[in-house]
Amino acid sequence: MPTLSKKSELMPASPIRKLVPFSVAAKKRGVKVYHLNIGQPDIDAPKCAVDAIRNLGSNAVEYTQSEGITEYQEGLVKYYAKNRINLDKNNILVTNGGSEAIIFALMACMNEGEELIVPEPFYANYNGFAVEVGVVVKPVVSSIENDFALPAISEFEKQITPKTKAIMICNPGNPTGYLYSKDELLQLKALAIKHDLYIISDEVYREFCYDGNTHNSIMELDGLENNAILIDSVSKRYSMCGARVGAIVTRNKGLLDAVMRLAQARLCPPYFGQVASLAALNTPDSYFEEVHKEYTARRNCMVEGLNKIPGVYCPNPKGAFYAVVKLPIDDSDKFAQWLLEDFSYENETVMVAPATGFYSTKGLGKNEVRIAYVLKIEDLQRSIIVLEKALEAYNKR
Amino acid sequence: MPTLSKKSELMPASPIRKLVPFSVAAKKRGVKVYHLNIGQPDIDAPKCAVDAIRNLGSNAVEYTQSEGITEYQEGLVKYYAKNRINLDKNNILVTNGGSEAIIFALMACMNEGEELIVPEPFYANYNGFAVEVGVVVKPVVSSIENDFALPAISEFEKQITPKTKAIMICNPGNPTGYLYSKDELLQLKALAIKHDLYIISDEVYREFCYDGNTHNSIMELDGLENNAILIDSVSKRYSMCGARVGAIVTRNKGLLDAVMRLAQARLCPPYFGQVASLAALNTPDSYFEEVHKEYTARRNCMVEGLNKIPGVYCPNPKGAFYAVVKLPIDDSDKFAQWLLEDFSYENETVMVAPATGFYSTKGLGKNEVRIAYVLKIEDLQRSIIVLEKALEAYNKR
Repeated sequence: MPTLSKKSELMPASPIRKLVPFSVAAKKRGVKVYHLNIGQPDIDAPKCAVDAIRNLGSNAVEYTQSEGITEYQEGLVKYYAKNRINLDKNNILVTNGGSEAIIFALMACMNEGEELIVPEPFYANYNGFAVEVGVVVKPVVSSIENDFALPAISEFEKQITPKTKAIMICNPGNPTGYLYSKDELLQLKALAIKHDLYIISDEVYREFCYDGNTHNSIMELDGLENNAILIDSVSKRYSMCGARVGAIVTRNKGLLDAVMRLAQARLCPPYFGQVASLAALNTPDSYFEEVHKEYTARRNCMVEGLNKIPGVYCPNPKGAFYAVVKLPIDDSDKFAQWLLEDFSYENETVMVAPATGFYSTKGLGKNEVRIAYVLKIEDLQRSIIVLEKALEAYNKR
Repeated sequence: MPTLSKKSELMPASPIRKLVPFSVAAKKRGVKVYHLNIGQPDIDAPKCAVDAIRNLGSNAVEYTQSEGITEYQEGLVKYYAKNRINLDKNNILVTNGGSEAIIFALMACMNEGEELIVPEPFYANYNGFAVEVGVVVKPVVSSIENDFALPAISEFEKQITPKTKAIMICNPGNPTGYLYSKDELLQLKALAIKHDLYIISDEVYREFCYDGNTHNSIMELDGLENNAILIDSVSKRYSMCGARVGAIVTRNKGLLDAVMRLAQARLCPPYFGQVASLAALNTPDSYFEEVHKEYTARRNCMVEGLNKIPGVYCPNPKGAFYAVVKLPIDDSDKFAQWLLEDFSYENETVMVAPATGFYSTKGLGKNEVRIAYVLKIEDLQRSIIVLEKALEAYNKR
C-alpha cells in the first residue's frame, strides 16, 4: 500500500469530533444534550439573502470570476466603508469561506518551516491550516487571569526568530471572545513594522461586540498597507455558515496578485453563496439589532450563571459568542467525555469543547472549556444548572 | 515589505487569463469574439437542481458535515452503482468542486518534493495544484500523431524514480478529449501495483463519451482498492460549474481518514450547492440524451470543419468537449493574442487557448491550441470560418 504524506500524519482531527460518538450514544440512551460546544448559531440567515436564491431567474449555474462576482466585491467595498475601512474592489478576493482565505494568506506569505506567532488559546483549525501549509505555530500564551488580554509585546518579541513571518490574531476572538483595543492593535502594528511581519487578522465576528464597544480593524491602521491581511466571512455575520463565502482583503498588491493565482487554480467561490451574500448586504439594521440584543442577553445569562458556580470563573467576553471558562476539574478532555458518557441530571447533559484543543502548548487548557452561547436563554439557563450538578458529581467520583 | 512565499513566485497564472484584456479590448472595438477558449458549457443546469434551492423552506444556512450531507453521499452511492462502481458512502467525501478534491488527494498522499507522473497535455491547473502542495510534475508526452493515446507504459517507467508517488490521469481528458480504453487502464493498474503508486483519476467528464463508447473508471478495477483515487464534480455533468461541488472517492480507508481531517479544517462544502447536487441526482435521462446529442453534433461539426482547413489537424475526440488541434502556426501564444489584437473577419474573431499552457515540457504545444466546443452549432460553424480566414491572414503577415 502506498504511504500517506507526513502532513496526513500531522494533520489534527477536530478536537470536538472525538466527542461526537459519545454525544450520539447519549442521545440514543434518551439523554438530552445541550450543545455548548459548537460555533453554529441557532439564528436564521436574513430572509433577503435566502430569498435571492429562491428568486433565481435563470437555470445557468456558471463559474463566477475567480476573485468573486464584481458586484459583490463592490458591495463589500461599501460594507467596509461603513466600518471605517476604505478599500478598492481590487483589494478584495472572495473565497470559499474564511477557511480558504486563511490558507491562501499562509500559502502566499510563508514558506515551509517559517513561523507564525499566534496568541493562544486560538481557533483550533489554525493548527490544521498550519500543517497544510507546513508552517510552524509559535504560541504566545494569553491568560484567563487577565481575561485573555493581548500578552505583553515583549512576549511576542521573545518568540521572534529569523523564521518568523507573520502574526495571526482573531478579533474578536474565538475561543475567548476577547476584543482587542485600538492600543493593542497599535502595539502589534509597531512590532510588525519593526520586524517586517505580516499581520493576519481574522475578523469574522466583527458584528458581535458588546457593552457599547466598537470593533477596531487592523485595516484601519495607517502604514500597514503592505503588512495587513484581513480574513472575513459571511458565516457568523449573517448566520450563513453553510454558504461558504469569505474574503481575503489586503492593500498589498503583490500579495493579492499571488492570492489571485491561487484562486484561479480552484476556479471560483460558490455562485449560489455569492448570490445570497450579495443580497445579504441589504440586511436591515433591525436584523443586527435583534441578533445583538439576543446575544447580549445570552452572554449576560452565561457569565452571571457560570460565575455563581463554586470554583468556576467565566470572563465577561466583549465580543464573538464564546467564552473560555475555568472549571474546577483535572482534565477537560476527560470531563467533556464523562459528561456525555457517564453523567446526566434529570436525563439531561451538556456538551462542551475541551480548551486543550485551542492551545498548542501541551498541558494548557486542562481546566478550561470553551462554551458557545448559541442557545436560547432558557436552554442556556438549564444547561448551566446541569453543568453545576455535573461539576459536583465529577468531583465526588 | 515582507516577502512573498516561494510558492507565490512559482504559482502559474491561468494561461487564458493573459488573453482576457485583449478579448475585452476587441469587444470594446466592436469586434464579436467567439469563445472557443473556455470550459464553461452554455447549457443550463437541470431545472430540478435549481428548483431545489428555489424551494428552500427554511432560512437556516448551516454548516453541513465536513464529508458532505449524508443523504447526498448516499445518493452518490446509487449514482456510482449505475456506473458499475460499487461503493459505500464512507468511500465518498464531498468537496468544494473537483479542484479541492485534487488538492486533498495530493496533500494526503504526497510529500514536498515527491513526483507525480501526468500524461501531457493535461489540465493546466494541475500545475498550480502541484505548486501549492510542493510536488513535482513529471510529464509523459502523448502526441497528436496518435490522437493523444496513452503513451507506452515504458515511457511511464522511464519517469519513475524513488520519489514517484502517484500517476494522475484525466479520463476523458481535458484538453484532448481522449477516452482511455479498459486495456490502457489495466496497463496503468499493473504499473501502479508494481511500483506501489497511487492513481488519481479525474473523471469529471464521465457523461461525455461519444460514438457509443462506454466510460471505464479506475474504480472498476479489482485490486486497486488502496491505490485508486477518483476525482469527481457536478460542474460538467449537470452544467453546474458555479455550484462548486465535487467529491474525492477512494476505498483506501486510511487515506480517506486523512482527507477527512483536511476536510474538517475547512468545515464543509457549500450547503446550497449540495442541495442542488442532491436534487440533480434525479435529473431525467432525457436531459443527458439531449446534451449528448447536442455535443455529438458540435463535435462532428468541429472535427469536420477544422480538418477541411489546409494544414489543420483535429483528432476525433471520443469524450469531454475539447480537442487539441494542430494549426499551421509558429507560436500558439502569439497567434491567440494576434487573433484578439490584430485580426477580425467581417468584424468577428475567435478566442482559443494556446496549448502551451497544457504542457509542462517547455516548447511543446507551440503549434497547437485547445478548442472547446461549447458553442451552438451555428456559432461553431461561423467561428471555424473565421479561424480559417485568420490562419490565411496570419501566415501572410
